[in-house]
Amino acid sequence: MLDVVQTPLKSLIARRRPGYTLEAPFYTSPQILQTDLDLIFGHHWIYVGVEPDVPEPGDVMVVDIGANSVLIVRDDDLGVKAFHNVCRHRGARLVHEPKTTVGNLVCGYHQWTYNLEGKLVHADHMGKDFDPGCHGLKPVHLRSLAGLLFICLSDDPPADFDEMAAVMTPYIAPHDIANCKVIHQSDLIELGNWKLTMENNRECYHCSANHPELTIPLFAYGFGFSPDSVDETELKQAQRYEQMVCDLGAQWEADGLPSREVDRLDDMVTGYRTQRLPIDRDGESQTIDTKVASKKLLGQFTNSKLGGLSFWTQPNSWHHFMSDHIVTFSVIPLDAERTLLRTKWLVHKDAVEGVDYDLENVIGVWVATNDQDGTLVGWAQAGARSQAYEPGPYSPYTEMLVDKFCNWYIGRLNALLPR
Amino acid sequence: MLDVVQTPLKSLIARRRPGYTLEAPFYTSPQILQTDLDLIFGHHWIYVGVEPDVPEPGDVMVVDIGANSVLIVRDDDLGVKAFHNVCRHRGARLVHEPKTTVGNLVCGYHQWTYNLEGKLVHADHMGKDFDPGCHGLKPVHLRSLAGLLFICLSDDPPADFDEMAAVMTPYIAPHDIANCKVIHQSDLIELGNWKLTMENNRECYHCSANHPELTIPLFAYGFGFSPDSVDETELKQAQRYEQMVCDLGAQWEADGLPSREVDRLDDMVTGYRTQRLPIDRDGESQTIDTKVASKKLLGQFTNSKLGGLSFWTQPNSWHHFMSDHIVTFSVIPLDAERTLLRTKWLVHKDAVEGVDYDLENVIGVWVATNDQDGTLVGWAQAGARSQAYEPGPYSPYTEMLVDKFCNWYIGRLNALLPR
Amino acid sequence: MLDVVQTPLKSLIARRRPGYTLEAPFYTSPQILQTDLDLIFGHHWIYVGVEPDVPEPGDVMVVDIGANSVLIVRDDDLGVKAFHNVCRHRGARLVHEPKTTVGNLVCGYHQWTYNLEGKLVHADHMGKDFDPGCHGLKPVHLRSLAGLLFICLSDDPPADFDEMAAVMTPYIAPHDIANCKVIHQSDLIELGNWKLTMENNRECYHCSANHPELTIPLFAYGFGFSPDSVDETELKQAQRYEQMVCDLGAQWEADGLPSREVDRLDDMVTGYRTQRLPIDRDGESQTIDTKVASKKLLGQFTNSKLGGLSFWTQPNSWHHFMSDHIVTFSVIPLDAERTLLRTKWLVHKDAVEGVDYDLENVIGVWVATNDQDGTLVGWAQAGARSQAYEPGPYSPYTEMLVDKFCNWYIGRLNALLPR
Repeated sequence: MLDVVQTPLKSLIARRRPGYTLEAPFYTSPQILQTDLDLIFGHHWIYVGVEPDVPEPGDVMVVDIGANSVLIVRDDDLGVKAFHNVCRHRGARLVHEPKTTVGNLVCGYHQWTYNLEGKLVHADHMGKDFDPGCHGLKPVHLRSLAGLLFICLSDDPPADFDEMAAVMTPYIAPHDIANCKVIHQSDLIELGNWKLTMENNRECYHCSANHPELTIPLFAYGFGFSPDSVDETELKQAQRYEQMVCDLGAQWEADGLPSREVDRLDDMVTGYRTQRLPIDRDGESQTIDTKVASKKLLGQFTNSKLGGLSFWTQPNSWHHFMSDHIVTFSVIPLDAERTLLRTKWLVHKDAVEGVDYDLENVIGVWVATNDQDGTLVGWAQAGARSQAYEPGPYSPYTEMLVDKFCNWYIGRLNALLPR
Repeated sequence: MLDVVQTPLKSLIARRRPGYTLEAPFYTSPQILQTDLDLIFGHHWIYVGVEPDVPEPGDVMVVDIGANSVLIVRDDDLGVKAFHNVCRHRGARLVHEPKTTVGNLVCGYHQWTYNLEGKLVHADHMGKDFDPGCHGLKPVHLRSLAGLLFICLSDDPPADFDEMAAVMTPYIAPHDIANCKVIHQSDLIELGNWKLTMENNRECYHCSANHPELTIPLFAYGFGFSPDSVDETELKQAQRYEQMVCDLGAQWEADGLPSREVDRLDDMVTGYRTQRLPIDRDGESQTIDTKVASKKLLGQFTNSKLGGLSFWTQPNSWHHFMSDHIVTFSVIPLDAERTLLRTKWLVHKDAVEGVDYDLENVIGVWVATNDQDGTLVGWAQAGARSQAYEPGPYSPYTEMLVDKFCNWYIGRLNALLPR
Repeated sequence: MLDVVQTPLKSLIARRRPGYTLEAPFYTSPQILQTDLDLIFGHHWIYVGVEPDVPEPGDVMVVDIGANSVLIVRDDDLGVKAFHNVCRHRGARLVHEPKTTVGNLVCGYHQWTYNLEGKLVHADHMGKDFDPGCHGLKPVHLRSLAGLLFICLSDDPPADFDEMAAVMTPYIAPHDIANCKVIHQSDLIELGNWKLTMENNRECYHCSANHPELTIPLFAYGFGFSPDSVDETELKQAQRYEQMVCDLGAQWEADGLPSREVDRLDDMVTGYRTQRLPIDRDGESQTIDTKVASKKLLGQFTNSKLGGLSFWTQPNSWHHFMSDHIVTFSVIPLDAERTLLRTKWLVHKDAVEGVDYDLENVIGVWVATNDQDGTLVGWAQAGARSQAYEPGPYSPYTEMLVDKFCNWYIGRLNALLPR
């Protein structure tokens, strides 16, 4: 293992074998995790939350990515801005709570005071030669895609976000995130590298044996299957489901809801994929009984059977939009072997708990599924540490999207590593 | 200290002063610990447990050594085999409990299924081009020495294991491990480098002041003493004990129980030492009252006064075999400053707790002694971190075996480090 | 951030911008912390405690600095000596409790025995060729400055300690530390680099908003202020306080108590500063009600209004001496991002708790203030990790002493780093 760790990163990248898992150091090396933070999380659009996280002027949310702490702020003009959470005087962190509401952003150390646009408006004892104009909060690039908030820590963010936004806005906008509220957030620490968390999300080969709750609303072979590996009954179900995808998809499109698959996972800098798929068992939503969990449908919806619109982005998010609620996931590395999976559940902002929805019913499927996935990620991490680990083959029938994640990752490292 | 840490390992090896403790980085440096895991624990026969740990077909024990996890499996032909605990698909760890019993070895992630010989017998969705024959579990070399299990993580294990086995089998076989059972295991984490745990085991200079329980059955000067350091009473006791070693040794040999000292600690790759010594106070076993703790004697024994047969191996084990029970110890590094000491106690498999033996009586002496040794190892580790630490002199009368451990260790590093 | 960490230390030193905070790696890099331990804490006079910590022969105090552990011992001639807490045999730590009383220093491992002068007086089993004279405890340089104990881990301690001692003894001696007792010690772990703990101590810009208790006895602008940043009322108070400094200072000097400012913070190897300042509100001591907390005044004092004599040393201490009690602080790095702040409170050795003083009243102000400062240091550390952190400007009116601390630190590194 000592040998492999010492293999230069460029060699590891060059010898990556398509269709196979990555070599062990990509999952275990603290140095490569630092490179991931610098090049992947530091130079791409990172999904961090939703506009309803900061609904009112002065609302602030703190997002930590590696050693960086970022403030997401709703300003007085109802815009959303992002700043580094670092005072320009002695460098102290400004905001300490995950969410708060402020008039100005005041550093607790020496009371340097910034307004919601990040401008330094007050600093005592600095004398006449001091120029407050040079000491505003440092901005962070932020974009809202129909209410989903993405930041980029680089001064030069990838330009193709606009292309993704142009395609995706018609899919997502009908779910009307702006008029939603976050009713629950879970922060789960998985004991594995962030790429194992992502790889786990990009296939359902593991679903049938591990996710009893999720496989009620989600058809387990939605990501594909090998005809040799299913029996006749399963094959018939798959054919029936395929027919539903065609029929319902055509109907949704006709109703003005874009639904067909778009897959740009490994051929864009801002890689993404989307598709609206039927809820199985003739259902409505990702719940245990497959029925809507919130009576107050989102946006202008009147039809509860809108399936599940899924949206996956590289490097760190996925989202499921139903007629009644939204579940949205962001993945943040903590260190080489620990990852934060942050999940938020949204319903219509006017829905009333206990009347329109039952919280446990809204969150039940994904709380259970996340927990199961966390265990699987831990098993994969433990194995990757072994000298016996070597890249294994992805199923060409069910793990194609995992392979695309690795393609994208290796390609981006290759493009961004200094020559 | 910065200087010393940066001294190249080869220089540290070259300037090792015989008769003195090692230089500090051997005890404190994470880099040298990694080298120890690679070269010492990765290329020698490591003692991991006993056949009674996996008595029946399908019984599995997991042993972790550094980042490696190894499955010890009893197969359907009653053989014992070892495999890396890593699925060949996505690399997940297969077995998570320390011990379990299985029909096949099934990966929990995607249900790849291996039989007890490690062959991949089932993998869904992989398509027709996939060759299961190339995806069996990776084997690990395993040998049983009269029931003591040793593994070697290298593809090319030291050949002189056979020589040791030829000498040692007649010593150990009469204690009939195959017909024993493990009645207790303790996993003690000592706050010191694994070499300090080993050095502590290889002398009894510290016994008289630190081990009130052990020095009842164990004669404190069994490893030697300086005549200048004992009073007349002690000298007489030593002479009396020496006579017992002669007399009882001759008798045991005559009864077909090999007992004389063999010391190959530092002149073989698979270094070892053995000797059968009398229990002090005319006793029978390593217990507080020096009497046998289990009425059901081992093997075909009818005489309870068989002393204690000790067996020490480089780099990581020691064992005490009495007429009624066996205590066996393995040492596994956790990191540069933490070490796992795993102790197992065995009695005849037909002995009944509460009838033939009292558990606390069997384990009492060594539970107390391990605990005391753990404290001493922690003190030594704390001192080794200091800039004031420098190699100190071993007693030429009581610490010769510690010196031999260091000789063996330095010699093996020297032989295995790349030129 | 990867870039900055990889900037060679000498470049970081060379480009230090006076009047600004240090670059981030000085606060976050484990390598630079190790350099700090080696060059700053290993080659300067480090304040560790007071003579009343070891009042009687055989009293021992253990002080840990980085990986080094040092014994402070009162010997039979009532002298105070320091030794490395490392046995010369197997290197075990000798004393494990923070304070104890012994006849000799006996290693618990193999009973090697040293007297209070560090001489090896007993070692069993070593044979006739062994020379105890070569195996005494290794001494550590120790100096007492009117009862304040400083050690230096280097063989060649800075010679200008004597110059500091000559100046400071007349200031401190009247407070008669030798006839004090330590009535309380607090060990607070701050979540920041040790230099942030020191910087926090060297200004009071943060006091008015963060230290409600301390700013009762301590005039908040005692370290300076910008006239533009205070209102008319505050300006008047400042003028009034300045007048008190003049008047009371002259009176104390006339009474034989040196009081005027001496500032050698950045122009000596053993940098220090002192000044006796009035207690605000016409008060007597650093207490909530500004009155003396102990009725038994120190030394020969009969006047309780002696202000607060402060004494600051580079790299790691500050002290406040009042007429009735003393508060003394030492700062010890634990790792790059954690620091031990050890505070001791002393009163006259004959003062009786509950009669002459109430413990909570003596310690109240600084227990609260330390806790508040610990929070501020944590905020500064969190910000220093961010890629957005850059050196910020010190106030030329209130943070001059912080700048001097950085000047001293950078100058010392520059002088001691190998060419």
